[in-house]
This record gives sequence, structure tokens and C-alpha cells, in this order.
Amino acid sequence: MATPVKVYGPPLSTAVSRVLACVLEKDVQFQLIPINMSKGEHKSSDFLKIQPFGQVPAFQDEDLSLFESRAICRYLCEKHPGKGNTKLYGTNPLVKASIDQWLEAEGQTFNPPSSILMFQLVFAPRMKIKQDQTLINKNEEKLAKVLEVYEKRLGESRFLAGDDFSLADLSHLPNAHYLVNATDKGELFTSKKNVGRWWAEITSRDSWKKVVEMQKQKN
Amino acid sequence: MATPVKVYGPPLSTAVSRVLACVLEKDVQFQLIPINMSKGEHKSSDFLKIQPFGQVPAFQDEDLSLFESRAICRYLCEKHPGKGNTKLYGTNPLVKASIDQWLEAEGQTFNPPSSILMFQLVFAPRMKIKQDQTLINKNEEKLAKVLEVYEKRLGESRFLAGDDFSLADLSHLPNAHYLVNATDKGELFTSKKNVGRWWAEITSRDSWKKVVEMQKQKN
Repeated sequence: MATPVKVYGPPLSTAVSRVLACVLEKDVQFQLIPINMSKGEHKSSDFLKIQPFGQVPAFQDEDLSLFESRAICRYLCEKHPGKGNTKLYGTNPLVKASIDQWLEAEGQTFNPPSSILMFQLVFAPRMKIKQDQTLINKNEEKLAKVLEVYEKRLGESRFLAGDDFSLADLSHLPNAHYLVNATDKGELFTSKKNVGRWWAEITSRDSWKKVVEMQKQKN
Repeated sequence: MATPVKVYGPPLSTAVSRVLACVLEKDVQFQLIPINMSKGEHKSSDFLKIQPFGQVPAFQDEDLSLFESRAICRYLCEKHPGKGNTKLYGTNPLVKASIDQWLEAEGQTFNPPSSILMFQLVFAPRMKIKQDQTLINKNEEKLAKVLEVYEKRLGESRFLAGDDFSLADLSHLPNAHYLVNATDKGELFTSKKNVGRWWAEITSRDSWKKVVEMQKQKN
């Protein structure tokens, strides 16, 4: 039996939960290694050896260490093309190009405003940091524009990259989950015909339901 | 002879120049289609059909349309593994994982502060937009921390992902080129032993020299 891969970090971290959704989709055995960020364990010299920026997640597969959640997801799919969800990163170069395109759109266009909103609306209050209403308004407007493009795309296509659920869809789950479930901005997603239909479908996957359970258990 | 791929957008755009460096490295025939952004051509209905966010670049290879510069670069390497620079996206899964990791580090960690600095220091004055000194200071500090990690990495490895120049290195060229050559922040790169050595090496590539020439010609 293969040695389980190791995922370092708390499931409440969006980037950690992205990797967890991927290992569950790919049915890859994994071990979750807790990293207590409030104790600064992500800045320890041992951790910095595998994640030099001092962020989570970090990942190990036998002798290979990796960081960056989207790179880890790509690696898992490349290493295990025939395991678990075999369509997660496409089965031909054209589909893969479409997945890469929407995965980059997530990382470059969806992630910046959704991360800022999530921090301001969810984490700032928990951390007793004053919210910045100008920043909230500006990024809500940016996110709304991004989701207008998604609404059109998802009117033409069941999932972002085509007919099948892929890494491109999966990668949106972590930030959007917080915005839909822990803020008053959920309607940005749920009130839209196509985005709402897509959101219901991608959040109903067993992999993501398990990640949400893990987030409830591990605090 | 294969139909040349089409790259839409001005070479002065960092994302367009990233794709140009890649087509030149891969020795893929291409046609550059000017998009006059000051006339709003990137928001025209025809352009939005291939780039729904109204940004540059857009890209076409026969019937395939793509956007997102890093996705286009990945596609070019996947489609032409044996053409031009055959090591640009790795020749085995472990090297590829390392390239993806540092390419994501560029997109997620290097790009945000370097883009903001570039906009504030280079483009805001040209566009008669008031500079935000607080934002400049904050992002200079962030970028300096990123480059400390790079300095360590490049002390262990000739290039970011290993022994060979790859998409991970290439992807840094556009933003860093502006910071080194058009601002007073160049020393962030050039004064560091390893980052400076790496910067001299990656900017001396014929592909990048040609892109810089194209930037001078097309305004």
C-alpha cells in the first residue's frame, strides 16, 4: 500500500481545504498534519524547509515536498490520472487547456476580491480587526463583475471548463463557501440563475461535504 | 505549414509579453494582433467573445480560444513538447510539479505586490493618477520579503524550479522588467547576490530580448 500523502495545515484555511477537496476527489490516501498557526508553527524553521513563505498548506508525497494549493492539486491529478475522479484535470489537451484557463481565472480574478471580502467580513471581526468599508464596497463590486462573466459562461456550459466538474470548479469552493455561509453576500452567488445552479451542484459533491465536516471538527 | 497562433494585445502589457516570451521560447509561429486599449477595443463585443473579462491577452490556435497568460503558456508547452525549448515546462512529473509550484508562487505571491508597485510607480504617473505612498511602502515591504525567499532558493538552485530555465522563471520577467528598468526599486533584484545573478541570466535570453524590442516598437 502506498504511503499516504501528507497535507499540513488547518482545514479552516481556504488553501488547505482546496487541497483536501482534491485528495478526496482523487481518492488518494492522506494524512492531515495539524499546524497551529496561532502558535506560529507555520513560521518554525522545520516548516519553512517545506514551505519557505511560511504559509499553509505544505504537502509531502514520499520524498517530494510541494507548496501552493493549485500546484499541489495539479500534481495529484498528473500523478494519478486513472484514480478517483479521472476527469478532474481533463482527459485531453483541449479540455485541460480550458481547465487551466478557468483555474487561472479563479486564481487571478476571482480569488483577489473574494479573499479580501472573506477576510474583511469573516476573519477581521473574529480577530478584532476594524473592518474597512471602502475596501469591502470596492471588492464586492469587483466580485459582482466577475460573477456576471461566470453567469454568462455557466449559461453555455454546465461547469466552468466544460461538461464535467473539474479543478477549475473545485478551486472556487473554499472562498465562496465562506462568503455564502458566513456573510450576508451569499446572494452574489445564490440569486443568479446559472451561478446558483452551479453552486448548488458543486457544493453537493461528497468530497466537499467531507471537507466541510473536517472544518467543523478541527478548529 | 501550421497556421500561426494569434496573440491579441499590446506587447507593453505584462501579461501579453509573458505569452510572447513563451511563443518565442517554444519557436511557435505567431501573429500579433494589436488591440488598442485606449480606444477600448478590449471591451468590444467581438473581443469579449474570446476574452470575457475584457482583458489582454487573448489567444487563438485554429479553433481554440484561450485567455489567462499562464494558462496559454502551459497550453503552448503541452501542445509542443518537442519544439523549441523542450525543458520549459519540464520533462518529467517531478520537475513539472516544481515548475507549477514556482509558477503559482509567481502568480499568487510575487505578482500581487509587484503589479501594485509597477502600477503606482510606472503607470499612475503616465496616466496622471495620484500615487498612493502608503500602498507603495506596504507592497515594497511585501515584495522584499518574497525576494528574500527567492534569494535563499536561488542560492540552492540555478533557476527557481531546478537546473533549467522554465515557465516559472519566464513568468517573472514582465513585472520585474518594469521595476528594474523604469523605477528606483531595481536594487530589490540587482543588489541581491543570487537574485541578481538569476535576473542577469534570465533577461539575457534571446526570447526576452526580442520581447523588449517589440515593446519599444509597439506603443
